[in-house]
Amino acid sequence: MSTSQADHQHAFDRSSCPVANMLDLFGDKWTLLVVRDIILGKSRYNEFAESPEGIPTNILADRLKRLEQGGIVIKIPYCQKPIRYQYELTEKGKDLIPVLESMVLWETKYFPGTQVFPSYDRETAK
Amino acid sequence: MSTSQADHQHAFDRSSCPVANMLDLFGDKWTLLVVRDIILGKSRYNEFAESPEGIPTNILADRLKRLEQGGIVIKIPYCQKPIRYQYELTEKGKDLIPVLESMVLWETKYFPGTQVFPSYDRETAK
Repeated sequence: MSTSQADHQHAFDRSSCPVANMLDLFGDKWTLLVVRDIILGKSRYNEFAESPEGIPTNILADRLKRLEQGGIVIKIPYCQKPIRYQYELTEKGKDLIPVLESMVLWETKYFPGTQVFPSYDRETAK
Repeated sequence: MSTSQADHQHAFDRSSCPVANMLDLFGDKWTLLVVRDIILGKSRYNEFAESPEGIPTNILADRLKRLEQGGIVIKIPYCQKPIRYQYELTEKGKDLIPVLESMVLWETKYFPGTQVFPSYDRETAK
């Protein structure tokens, strides 16, 4: 095996196919819902936890960690004592918006009952 | 609970959010890879099974069944004795192409090592 093949093997979990790599990162039922929440204006742990899908807190903590490790979100302190963080999308994260938009287009065509949630307002927690 | 609320509860597994519903259908590591294979020209069980990601055959059978039940693929006999089927995308399935294209755009921007697989040629099995 050449070095480049070895690098290639190392770089991707399953194959060099972009769809396969996308699914290695986001192929579960929760990760993109956290991204959706941030797009809608949420940024804090309890705000994500209160979304109607009811993400289990251990999964939420894991997905936020993975999103941070993957350079999709950054963690910024908003309170020092006790230290508390909020999460924002990086440029890489914001570039996922067209992916979610393409999903919304397909869904609204074939599942007319689906509705994009309104933007989140921290003041009213709605 | 009003009738419309009851209908709504029944219609979606987790919420009426289109992204959540999309993940209820495709939020796993394999389903969209079968769709990708069909887009690339594969249509038969053994062709899907030979893709480089190495989908386990029990998962492949399950995902083909779910895709058929979801109206994403149709099953067409290509051999009568013994009966064998091939799978084609419906219009609903073909409309997933822009979703996969948006994934490819994001991937090729952030993971330049990814490469869209060439179309499949049954004659050469490549």
